[in-house]
Amino acid sequence: MQAEIITIGDEILIGQIVDTNSAWMGTLLNENGIKVYQITSVSDNRQHILNALKEASERADIILITGGLGPTRDDITKHTLCEYFNAKLRLDKDILVDVTNIFKKFGREVTEINRKQAEVPENCIPLHNYNGTAPGMWFEEKGKIYVSMPGVPFEMKALMAEEVIPRLKKKFTLPFIMHKNVLTQGIGESALAEKISSWEDSLAIENITLAYLPSPSLVRLRLSTRGTDANKMQDSINRKVAELKKIAGDYIYGYDNDTMESVVGALLLKRKETISTAESCTGGYIAHRITSIAGSSDYFKGAIISYANEIKTKELGVSEEILKEHGAVSQPVVEQMAKTARERLNTDYSIAVSGIAGPGGGTPEKPVGTVWIAIATPQRVFSKRWIFAGNRERNILVTGLTALNMLRKELLSNS
Amino acid sequence: MQAEIITIGDEILIGQIVDTNSAWMGTLLNENGIKVYQITSVSDNRQHILNALKEASERADIILITGGLGPTRDDITKHTLCEYFNAKLRLDKDILVDVTNIFKKFGREVTEINRKQAEVPENCIPLHNYNGTAPGMWFEEKGKIYVSMPGVPFEMKALMAEEVIPRLKKKFTLPFIMHKNVLTQGIGESALAEKISSWEDSLAIENITLAYLPSPSLVRLRLSTRGTDANKMQDSINRKVAELKKIAGDYIYGYDNDTMESVVGALLLKRKETISTAESCTGGYIAHRITSIAGSSDYFKGAIISYANEIKTKELGVSEEILKEHGAVSQPVVEQMAKTARERLNTDYSIAVSGIAGPGGGTPEKPVGTVWIAIATPQRVFSKRWIFAGNRERNILVTGLTALNMLRKELLSNS
Repeated sequence: MQAEIITIGDEILIGQIVDTNSAWMGTLLNENGIKVYQITSVSDNRQHILNALKEASERADIILITGGLGPTRDDITKHTLCEYFNAKLRLDKDILVDVTNIFKKFGREVTEINRKQAEVPENCIPLHNYNGTAPGMWFEEKGKIYVSMPGVPFEMKALMAEEVIPRLKKKFTLPFIMHKNVLTQGIGESALAEKISSWEDSLAIENITLAYLPSPSLVRLRLSTRGTDANKMQDSINRKVAELKKIAGDYIYGYDNDTMESVVGALLLKRKETISTAESCTGGYIAHRITSIAGSSDYFKGAIISYANEIKTKELGVSEEILKEHGAVSQPVVEQMAKTARERLNTDYSIAVSGIAGPGGGTPEKPVGTVWIAIATPQRVFSKRWIFAGNRERNILVTGLTALNMLRKELLSNS
Repeated sequence: MQAEIITIGDEILIGQIVDTNSAWMGTLLNENGIKVYQITSVSDNRQHILNALKEASERADIILITGGLGPTRDDITKHTLCEYFNAKLRLDKDILVDVTNIFKKFGREVTEINRKQAEVPENCIPLHNYNGTAPGMWFEEKGKIYVSMPGVPFEMKALMAEEVIPRLKKKFTLPFIMHKNVLTQGIGESALAEKISSWEDSLAIENITLAYLPSPSLVRLRLSTRGTDANKMQDSINRKVAELKKIAGDYIYGYDNDTMESVVGALLLKRKETISTAESCTGGYIAHRITSIAGSSDYFKGAIISYANEIKTKELGVSEEILKEHGAVSQPVVEQMAKTARERLNTDYSIAVSGIAGPGGGTPEKPVGTVWIAIATPQRVFSKRWIFAGNRERNILVTGLTALNMLRKELLSNS
């Protein structure tokens, strides 16, 4: 079963809004066994919309259309659908009740222009939209299904979940689709691909496909399969993930919707242990990521951000001699930062970082991207030097991920 | 001059990633006088890519393609372009140097699979990508231009800005398009629209159009005009911006590529003054934003993140009595935090925040989104209570922007 999505609106083409609707619809359709073949964004132009409808109907069974249903003149989707299906508009009394109710909510009268929102092409089944004035519209013609929905995300989402998906499920017998995301850190896409090459080859027999989804310092591996026997599919995925863990387990930090900070947070919560940070080049970014998780106050107590050397000395016990001898980006400095932060902030663990985020500050011995990361634990303080090769933003990001992953591994090795 | 964008990748169709590239490219092309006619997202499938290329070339003059250029097996764009243009791959020595340099940076050897990244179709001009291993590729055939770029946003953005747009400008005579972005904080889109309604009406005579681009707590107003007389256009824009400043100047914090932290940073730098933060609910986010600016070490010295009350007491001089009497989210607490941080971290100014980011922790008196923000200056400490109405992520974001804007206004009132 194949679908296509057509999003209508000049604001998408000039980049004024990012089309988040399509990704949301794609996820929902996929979870329900419907493959999205193509997404097409077109302008508020009659002929362009007609062409897009015709082309999509030649490739797909289901055509989902969003946008262009407002009451103003530049919204022409409804009239264009009439032209496409050679149908007239009719006033739908049920929909008029919906529209009237929406206006009542805001204490307003229904104007003539808004009454028109209750007019629908005579060949469609109108779908109730309780969040706005434009109804959804369901068309069936020549074995194809067309659904037109408003572009406002929360209106579209309610229509998709409450009307469109249930109707599609009634209409078609859909296969199961299953995805599993394996999240890795600290290995590049191509090095990972080489490492797991023969495992990857073995996926075909199980009818599993693999995608590499890289972002700075992370690679997400997505395993996908479709079929009719959900149990068997789940078994295959589980078996293959178990095999992968044996080959590349060192790099795997989580699955599906996990984030590095959610994984670290869950570990600390389970162990009833606490964390603090002492940050120089990341300037609070690591603390920010940790506290982006709801409930992080159960394990995160605080941080000392020592951007200036003066603060490293005054607040983190780094002596001026050590700074002079080794420089701020050095092992003794970062280890002292971690040690002092752990003690002063009274936590079980502390992460400390000191590095050169760039663009300035690099030297031949310590180029931009050089970062020392230390972890203080109840037992010891250890550290490692990294050289990241990004711009400022990326170096800060990758330092944060790497530091959290160092702590994660330490927690696991001590469990 | 019409362009089309083709984004390649199953991950877009199954909704795993939101296609933000297209909106970014649409904006940039538009600013340079090139209209985007259609955006098409297709799967990592040979025939599908071939069809999309052919169809786009029938409608547009310029076809911009992103995605599918990784070194792994599911990335087939390069081979498909060879098939489309009936061209062979050749190893490009300059690009091989780029690839080798990228690996050198990481202290790694170039593997066979990575060497292949330097192979390009023989009929293309390779474009240097200094941020990744896949080069951009520029093709000209039958009067049409095709450009293939990686899907990784920061790689694509650098290629677009440094290679593609300059080459398109050389190739075509594009009309002058002029934009001016006026950045506001602290007023909603509709309230702003009402406030500037008659000013907005007056734009048409000057051939200026206006767009409202809202994001949490910010509204960007984009004035656009196109024509042939750049001086006259610039005059019109300047005059209208001056008028706007009189009407809504209180809300304007910057222009064009300014960010709240760049504006605050520039002010501090000019005044040779320094800043620190004391953060509770934002957990380091404000320090992170300040230090995202290159050169911020000239004015940012550090921060104390006091997530736990214990840290507020121990490190920021907030007495247990005050905490007990007023709660952590209160005026006396946040003012003490700002005062102590300013003194301890030895800075001219300090920003302190304490609030309830959510989802937990709210009460009827202090609902989720309640935030106290204090600013300590050489002269005084002042504070204000805000109630933001977002989820956790949004409350942290808006608190950061609001706090920085409070400091910005204080700096300006004292200049």
